[in-house]
Amino acid sequence: MTRVGVWLIGARGSVATTAVLGALAVRSGAAGRTGCVTERPEFAGARLPGIGDLVFGGHDVSETGLRESAERLAGAGVLPAHLPPALADGLDRTERGLRRGLDDVSGGVRRGDVDRLEADLREFSEREALERVVVVDLSSTEPRPGAYAEHTDADALEAALDTGTARIPASSAYAYAALRAGCAFVEFTPNTGPRLPALARLADRSGVPWAGSDGKTGETLVKSALAPMFAARALHVRSWSSVNLLGGGDGATLADPANAESKLASKARGLEHMLGHGPDGPLHIDYVPDLGDAKVAWDHVSFEGFLGARMSLQFTWSGYDSALAAPLVLDLARLAAHAHRQGRSGPLPELAFFFKDPVGTREHGLAEQWRALTSWCAAPAEEAE
Amino acid sequence: MTRVGVWLIGARGSVATTAVLGALAVRSGAAGRTGCVTERPEFAGARLPGIGDLVFGGHDVSETGLRESAERLAGAGVLPAHLPPALADGLDRTERGLRRGLDDVSGGVRRGDVDRLEADLREFSEREALERVVVVDLSSTEPRPGAYAEHTDADALEAALDTGTARIPASSAYAYAALRAGCAFVEFTPNTGPRLPALARLADRSGVPWAGSDGKTGETLVKSALAPMFAARALHVRSWSSVNLLGGGDGATLADPANAESKLASKARGLEHMLGHGPDGPLHIDYVPDLGDAKVAWDHVSFEGFLGARMSLQFTWSGYDSALAAPLVLDLARLAAHAHRQGRSGPLPELAFFFKDPVGTREHGLAEQWRALTSWCAAPAEEAE
Amino acid sequence: MTRVGVWLIGARGSVATTAVLGALAVRSGAAGRTGCVTERPEFAGARLPGIGDLVFGGHDVSETGLRESAERLAGAGVLPAHLPPALADGLDRTERGLRRGLDDVSGGVRRGDVDRLEADLREFSEREALERVVVVDLSSTEPRPGAYAEHTDADALEAALDTGTARIPASSAYAYAALRAGCAFVEFTPNTGPRLPALARLADRSGVPWAGSDGKTGETLVKSALAPMFAARALHVRSWSSVNLLGGGDGATLADPANAESKLASKARGLEHMLGHGPDGPLHIDYVPDLGDAKVAWDHVSFEGFLGARMSLQFTWSGYDSALAAPLVLDLARLAAHAHRQGRSGPLPELAFFFKDPVGTREHGLAEQWRALTSWCAAPAEEAE
Amino acid sequence: MTRVGVWLIGARGSVATTAVLGALAVRSGAAGRTGCVTERPEFAGARLPGIGDLVFGGHDVSETGLRESAERLAGAGVLPAHLPPALADGLDRTERGLRRGLDDVSGGVRRGDVDRLEADLREFSEREALERVVVVDLSSTEPRPGAYAEHTDADALEAALDTGTARIPASSAYAYAALRAGCAFVEFTPNTGPRLPALARLADRSGVPWAGSDGKTGETLVKSALAPMFAARALHVRSWSSVNLLGGGDGATLADPANAESKLASKARGLEHMLGHGPDGPLHIDYVPDLGDAKVAWDHVSFEGFLGARMSLQFTWSGYDSALAAPLVLDLARLAAHAHRQGRSGPLPELAFFFKDPVGTREHGLAEQWRALTSWCAAPAEEAE
Repeated sequence: MTRVGVWLIGARGSVATTAVLGALAVRSGAAGRTGCVTERPEFAGARLPGIGDLVFGGHDVSETGLRESAERLAGAGVLPAHLPPALADGLDRTERGLRRGLDDVSGGVRRGDVDRLEADLREFSEREALERVVVVDLSSTEPRPGAYAEHTDADALEAALDTGTARIPASSAYAYAALRAGCAFVEFTPNTGPRLPALARLADRSGVPWAGSDGKTGETLVKSALAPMFAARALHVRSWSSVNLLGGGDGATLADPANAESKLASKARGLEHMLGHGPDGPLHIDYVPDLGDAKVAWDHVSFEGFLGARMSLQFTWSGYDSALAAPLVLDLARLAAHAHRQGRSGPLPELAFFFKDPVGTREHGLAEQWRALTSWCAAPAEEAE
Repeated sequence: MTRVGVWLIGARGSVATTAVLGALAVRSGAAGRTGCVTERPEFAGARLPGIGDLVFGGHDVSETGLRESAERLAGAGVLPAHLPPALADGLDRTERGLRRGLDDVSGGVRRGDVDRLEADLREFSEREALERVVVVDLSSTEPRPGAYAEHTDADALEAALDTGTARIPASSAYAYAALRAGCAFVEFTPNTGPRLPALARLADRSGVPWAGSDGKTGETLVKSALAPMFAARALHVRSWSSVNLLGGGDGATLADPANAESKLASKARGLEHMLGHGPDGPLHIDYVPDLGDAKVAWDHVSFEGFLGARMSLQFTWSGYDSALAAPLVLDLARLAAHAHRQGRSGPLPELAFFFKDPVGTREHGLAEQWRALTSWCAAPAEEAE
Repeated sequence: MTRVGVWLIGARGSVATTAVLGALAVRSGAAGRTGCVTERPEFAGARLPGIGDLVFGGHDVSETGLRESAERLAGAGVLPAHLPPALADGLDRTERGLRRGLDDVSGGVRRGDVDRLEADLREFSEREALERVVVVDLSSTEPRPGAYAEHTDADALEAALDTGTARIPASSAYAYAALRAGCAFVEFTPNTGPRLPALARLADRSGVPWAGSDGKTGETLVKSALAPMFAARALHVRSWSSVNLLGGGDGATLADPANAESKLASKARGLEHMLGHGPDGPLHIDYVPDLGDAKVAWDHVSFEGFLGARMSLQFTWSGYDSALAAPLVLDLARLAAHAHRQGRSGPLPELAFFFKDPVGTREHGLAEQWRALTSWCAAPAEEAE
Repeated sequence: MTRVGVWLIGARGSVATTAVLGALAVRSGAAGRTGCVTERPEFAGARLPGIGDLVFGGHDVSETGLRESAERLAGAGVLPAHLPPALADGLDRTERGLRRGLDDVSGGVRRGDVDRLEADLREFSEREALERVVVVDLSSTEPRPGAYAEHTDADALEAALDTGTARIPASSAYAYAALRAGCAFVEFTPNTGPRLPALARLADRSGVPWAGSDGKTGETLVKSALAPMFAARALHVRSWSSVNLLGGGDGATLADPANAESKLASKARGLEHMLGHGPDGPLHIDYVPDLGDAKVAWDHVSFEGFLGARMSLQFTWSGYDSALAAPLVLDLARLAAHAHRQGRSGPLPELAFFFKDPVGTREHGLAEQWRALTSWCAAPAEEAE
């Protein structure tokens, strides 16, 4: 049976821990597949790699091990208390395959940095005898980068790496290494990752597919189901106000406005596309440490109907970020591997269903994204040799 | 210019009044087309009858005239205060074309009843020189009827009408008259209307199309946008609790559990189809007179994600029933006339988008319904002679 | 150190289990006193019995032991997972002191029944060398009883007990036994308990205080904080609609309308007292098994301000019934023992703060109830010899 | 009958317009007294000036007249459409008594400025033959001022006025003029007004009472009813997140963070006092123009109960700022006049019930404030000669 590697950037974080533990639990029969999109019947004919065939590795700079991370999540009620001890061996085995991530790159990324990352990926693939590897970025949200020549010009990027002065974010350094190692890449965060034009071109040349960005797991998911409803009914949305209360590690990162900026931008774009205009209303992301791994979002939509009638819809979403995101990580790894098998390269707009800020398409409506995804997976496979 | 008749059962009620006033306002330029689905670009190629080409008539048993009804709605803030006086002439003209509806039919519908209704329709069509007439049922919710031979057997129905003992609800008597008069029929309420098998067969034989039932204007609309989201994301909805607070005339009718039964049944069916299972949770419709023409709905959805994580979504919808329903009445009149022009007869599943309990299809998801509707209207017209 | 007994009717249910485990945890230092009203500084001078001085016993008809019950609650995330094993000894010790409760009394309560209950209480008091015992009813909600002579006439009650035909609810049988045994009684449910006039008189004669009824732990608590706000601001509440979704055992009991009736009545009364009029709007209690030990309540308040302006307030409360009720059980046991020490007998209106349907007072506003409670506890003790 | 003057700073704004129109409507019997606190029975014995005895004047820099302002509010559905035309004469009469307010004072307030304001007040009092005048500040929210010698030192203030360089906000200039004219002052906004130490001393010396600040009309009102509930029940509030969406003129002003600062500070202070600690959570004020005169607030409270159980309460408040504030303006005018009659001078802590940031007391709980207010008004009058 061919095995597929899943290499997680931020491998000891909450989402990654839940994804690894969950895959172990599903494989052993200790847990079901609720939340796994690719387990729905629509995907049965696509012969995706099985959840049980996924092998995990990854980079992280945190010292907190996977087991400790899993136990913390179980203590907080996010994971069932019995799973971490029951699956401790699997967690430890995965832990041994993790490698040190990139430290602070604010002084410039060096050739040696990306070479090491690439070597880690190649070593993982060989050690585990994998058919292929998908790299999934689950690292913390980065500040929005400035604009530099090495972002757009592939030669300038190579030259800057040689001199150790490449002003690219860490996520893009990981993406560079992945593409060089021939690994498909999934940008699950709002980070830049492979979206630098210089990297997008490298992906095309390397025959590597990539997907992104910014996993759609909560408030934006609901938005993408509701906004098309207003549009189809010709109701005029006057204001759409959104508040996101986050307690987890990502909340802390996003408390810094510089980091929140890219996330806010990717959240706002979709609404305008779905409604045909940008309504009034704030979009807040607030760090509320007390909430722990939970997140709560409130949206208030003020809309106008026939003859100017003023009406409103509001919703409150209460969820666990890691429980929502982790199965999507498994889905995306399976789908990206599938695309890679099919010989696809470059951005994968069919995966827009999973993202707040999808590459390669302007479609933000959930139902249309679902149709695009399932149509692709229902099509007769045209696998590359 | 061909003109199309719209004959409203319950022509002096809030929804009908708003539809008539609104069409007058749109025609005169005094109001915009917000809330009119068929004014969206997707319908531009279908050459539907224009809103300005609609001519209104109808039946009602209420003595409160259209003008008085419009002024009441304006006083309650549902309609702009300046519209009823500005359009008083048009309202009066329409008022003069209204005819007395059916009084209590609990003793049995008689041949004379349906003959009179049919004659009213034919007289309307001739007087106004109409291309065709669409009858739209906007009457109060009826109790769910018992089962009788004349419901399924067309001959038995004719015989019972002859003896004046046809145990059919008023809505079905109106539908019978409409079909006999060659008018398309739209069942906008949860009432039985043309759904009696004996009538469905009559519609086929008469070459008349019909659509229904139970306009989807609020809480169920939101449900039909959200339930497919949970399904597509493989999230397990454990309970879905719904509360509808209604203040208007329909609320009073529904306060009688016998009347609420059919409405509740049509609301519940869809959720099960969309989720693949019927979740726990109550479904309440409550009459709260204080709310007047407003309605407020609260839904609480408890769902389970990956590894058993328990999460929730709740929403509150605050709207005006007549502002939501009236433009759909105009849409449905235009679309039913369009189908009739095309030579369609029998149920119109393409109009499921507008209904809680759509005929001729089991599709309840809003996005799929939208696709079916717009595909039909985008198709090259195949008009009948 | 004097020790005070707390005898729980329904001793193996969720609330009782949480109260017992919680008292053990507080005593051992394994948990804090959050939620314990009588630990606030306002009560410091009253020299109430300490939480650590409470000794637990009780009646139940369930066979599920305290330990199993605690483990189930911990598994559901209502109790911390580490507490049941850590306090297993204490739970087992309490378990051994529990006695079989009353089986079905629909055929009539017999003298032997109440004698046995009374004997259990006396045996508990002696075995544990207790200063006094407070009986707290935590049993399931009963149907509202009919009206019988033995309810009002103490002699008729004695006679009916003698013939084994006393048509009193189980809760009143427990109350009778408690009063005979000289134990203070707290009716924490909406059940009749000591409110039968025949029993109220017995309490006076026996010099025993009692409190009740129906613990105010969630939606009604919030109501009792908000309704006085509307009243004080002279805002006119037009409708107040309430929905309670309950998943636990009490939810199942209340799914039977006969049982819900008494609860609904006690919930509705207060609103009318606080507002000065009874507003429109439904009051639902629904059983949603999926919610488990959680309860969710939604209230929608429509109110009118100056010059007829229409405004609204809505709230959603999500809580755990046992976590909310259990510390109040400890509070009430301490306060009832305190009153008994002071020589009080009959109803204790000072404890209205804890109840939806307080005895001996019509004050339902939370702030006024708080003032009455703290004033009483701040008053110089006038203990009986 | 003695008549009392009410001089409004910002006399043509929404709140002032509603207050004036409302008083005219109440006097003429065209509207009821809903929302008027001082019309409750608790105040019947205090012999407050009647609503019909209030005479209005005021300052404003806006050119939009009272009538136009009232018609705009009626058009937006905030006021009944029939009132502005019915009371046009009264509005016009009041309009004629309005005077030009202070223009930009950023260059320094001059002696001439405050002299003119004082003269306007004296002229009003004489022209209308008033027993006394209460000045109520309803002007826009100002930026929080810097610290200057003339704020604390009365002599420095006089000197700076003489040289035309007094760096005091406009609200304080109005307060200065009012105190000099012997008028009681109500600071209904978060502005500085009479809170400068130099002015507070002037008020004492002049024998003039004043009250403030920042009218408690919506989200903070609800907070002040709910926070004491958590405290009394010993529940630990972990986070309290607040979002205020405002559409009106004040919303626009508050969109500038410099202006919002003082409002946010006054809103936050109370929560800490009521809970005994300052919980986590953001406090947003957002300008959403689409909302017009409406405001919507959402609060999410995460709290902990017994044994660490995590629970939540959330509420949504939808109201009209002017409908909520206007009757309180009438209440405060009556109460401030009452205090002045009684010979009170300096801050009036008894009026804390009306304010987010009450002067002279740290009590923020609504019920305690209500008790203080009604106790004062129930006390036997000790009027000054």
